[in-house]
Amino acid sequence: MKVTVNRKAHFNAAHRLYRPEWTDEKNLAVFGKCSNPNYHGHNYDLVVSVTGEVDPITGFVMDMKVLKNLIKTEIEDAFDHKNLNVEVPEFNETGLNPTSENIVVVIYNKLRPRIDAKHHLKVTLYETPRNFVSYSGA
Amino acid sequence: MKVTVNRKAHFNAAHRLYRPEWTDEKNLAVFGKCSNPNYHGHNYDLVVSVTGEVDPITGFVMDMKVLKNLIKTEIEDAFDHKNLNVEVPEFNETGLNPTSENIVVVIYNKLRPRIDAKHHLKVTLYETPRNFVSYSGA
Amino acid sequence: MKVTVNRKAHFNAAHRLYRPEWTDEKNLAVFGKCSNPNYHGHNYDLVVSVTGEVDPITGFVMDMKVLKNLIKTEIEDAFDHKNLNVEVPEFNETGLNPTSENIVVVIYNKLRPRIDAKHHLKVTLYETPRNFVSYSGA
Amino acid sequence: MKVTVNRKAHFNAAHRLYRPEWTDEKNLAVFGKCSNPNYHGHNYDLVVSVTGEVDPITGFVMDMKVLKNLIKTEIEDAFDHKNLNVEVPEFNETGLNPTSENIVVVIYNKLRPRIDAKHHLKVTLYETPRNFVSYSGA
Amino acid sequence: MKVTVNRKAHFNAAHRLYRPEWTDEKNLAVFGKCSNPNYHGHNYDLVVSVTGEVDPITGFVMDMKVLKNLIKTEIEDAFDHKNLNVEVPEFNETGLNPTSENIVVVIYNKLRPRIDAKHHLKVTLYETPRNFVSYSGA
Amino acid sequence: MKVTVNRKAHFNAAHRLYRPEWTDEKNLAVFGKCSNPNYHGHNYDLVVSVTGEVDPITGFVMDMKVLKNLIKTEIEDAFDHKNLNVEVPEFNETGLNPTSENIVVVIYNKLRPRIDAKHHLKVTLYETPRNFVSYSGA
Repeated sequence: MKVTVNRKAHFNAAHRLYRPEWTDEKNLAVFGKCSNPNYHGHNYDLVVSVTGEVDPITGFVMDMKVLKNLIKTEIEDAFDHKNLNVEVPEFNETGLNPTSENIVVVIYNKLRPRIDAKHHLKVTLYETPRNFVSYSGA
Repeated sequence: MKVTVNRKAHFNAAHRLYRPEWTDEKNLAVFGKCSNPNYHGHNYDLVVSVTGEVDPITGFVMDMKVLKNLIKTEIEDAFDHKNLNVEVPEFNETGLNPTSENIVVVIYNKLRPRIDAKHHLKVTLYETPRNFVSYSGA
Repeated sequence: MKVTVNRKAHFNAAHRLYRPEWTDEKNLAVFGKCSNPNYHGHNYDLVVSVTGEVDPITGFVMDMKVLKNLIKTEIEDAFDHKNLNVEVPEFNETGLNPTSENIVVVIYNKLRPRIDAKHHLKVTLYETPRNFVSYSGA
Repeated sequence: MKVTVNRKAHFNAAHRLYRPEWTDEKNLAVFGKCSNPNYHGHNYDLVVSVTGEVDPITGFVMDMKVLKNLIKTEIEDAFDHKNLNVEVPEFNETGLNPTSENIVVVIYNKLRPRIDAKHHLKVTLYETPRNFVSYSGA
Repeated sequence: MKVTVNRKAHFNAAHRLYRPEWTDEKNLAVFGKCSNPNYHGHNYDLVVSVTGEVDPITGFVMDMKVLKNLIKTEIEDAFDHKNLNVEVPEFNETGLNPTSENIVVVIYNKLRPRIDAKHHLKVTLYETPRNFVSYSGA
Repeated sequence: MKVTVNRKAHFNAAHRLYRPEWTDEKNLAVFGKCSNPNYHGHNYDLVVSVTGEVDPITGFVMDMKVLKNLIKTEIEDAFDHKNLNVEVPEFNETGLNPTSENIVVVIYNKLRPRIDAKHHLKVTLYETPRNFVSYSGA
């Protein structure tokens, strides 16, 4: 009897999309106004979804207070009110482009080792209410 | 050609999370403020999702008026403005803890026999906009 | 140059509507299923709106972190995961009926002395997304 | 490493549900007030979901500007402020009943040839916030 | 002690914007695609706001069940799944153009005589989540 | 017969809150993590509200297409995907701190001369769904 539990979280951040080896013109051609060198930003909404068996004693798949705190420590504290390109190691130390696709994979990879391996994990990231992505590790 | 049709519904209810065989201290340690013996409550939102072939005459997988009425009779009339621990047989007669996980399974089990067996069924339950669960019978 | 700043907050609570001096029949006739003696509950959303001059140095009417913390201390800590009839002094010590109208006035009266008297205050309370009330002290 | 990217769009349209070979009475019995011969209408919300590998250079599954423009050209320009029964060829030339199920399949079939065949496609259509459907081609 | 109580409701309808004495060209120039002779439609959301003294016995400004039923009888039953231009007397018998502005005034005028004259009334109508209007009789 | 028409719009931007004449420590003490020198950002939602008489011929207070285009030209094109501190003249040429309060006043002042002087104007700006401000010129 597998149930999926979902927890919604939130962070605000600045970013820009660009490839450092490309000219400004090429970056503008590919990434449009998202390549603005002075950055822009978003209110990112995040849904973390954990699927597993319901514990017959507690009635929990996973304690949502634990999941809430894990998201706070691993993701909100690391990303909120930050410049993703400049201040977040997964991007500034690697040159990884902070597209929604890459951010959602980074979040998944940060959470995966902290969640029971027998549980399935999926992460959904809303860059805006009209643009969102999801990743489940495959 | 399988399409999923989804119908959203709503009920307001009181509940508490606890194990009667545990002390108040242990209930508080495990369930936090959700174990308050005087109850608290939620506006529960519900999405019922039915997947099947589209009927070539009507263009329906399942008549949404029928689904809406089924949710009303089976779920809203049984749960709305109720105390789940005290008044809803699936919980008060069994001691089942009314966590979101257990509630969504109860809802699924009540609807499953009323929906054509050749259709796939999934139920999603929002306890709050930030905490929600889903179950599809597996 | 007066600007209104608004901060949204949230609490979950149980309540029932009834007059102790009335019979159950009369309570049911007036309050409907909201009079259920076993309680039901809601996810209450709250918007606190403060209007005043913008400080030319900070660009703030009122520091939103201060307002957020004030709402947490005065309202969320007092009401969240509580039974309003049984555990919240403004209702259980006075017999005040916890209708949305009375709750919003109680919230206003708790916040008013904590907010600069030169600022206008308005409180909006959502009992459900379809039922909400507001009060500004007049 | 497969990620799903989602883009939300919108159109307003009129429609009615009916079978031309049926009497008005039978249409009313089956389709209820949706069979009104004078039409009614909806604000349709649409989510187009594309799943594929993330390009290691751009960090994109698919350029969301391209997807946004594709939805505009193929769907919004064709359906927005239109009468689906009278003006949209997929319905008026075939007699296909514009139920949500049939509309979502039509949208899928219009988009499928325009999106890289190696990508998975899913379309979700909200007729109202309470009634919505999805289709992924199977 | 005046509190405002608000009730949200909903109807789906078809309409077109045009002046019968104008040419199609002029209607198109002024009303754009909203003048489509085959109609388009919307999911209209409605908020009815009633302001008055809180009754010290019930804790109500106005019984929300009464307000809900009044909106159903006067507005939802009259407008839902209707063509506003063709089937709703306030428009089809007068030639009044069913713009959001005119619809909200019609709704206000239908509700005003049914609500206690000592209460203030305001009506807000959402044609889409991005276009909405309000009227309070002045 | 005065009706208020409202139009919702959107822009994404980066900003930081700080006073250049203050030390980093003082900026941090007053503005918290909003003073991050590397910027953060938001999805800003905007509602522009115009109140006036309904034109008896068109049924419009103001043509919403005109209002939509005005917001696009004056606000969205100027602010979207920009760094407010660095690239928007109302802030970078004056040192005005881009708090929500100051942004909403700037938006109001940009729109006011473009809207008929006989109409009342109000602007509401959502920095996040939980923090928002409004200004109507007084």
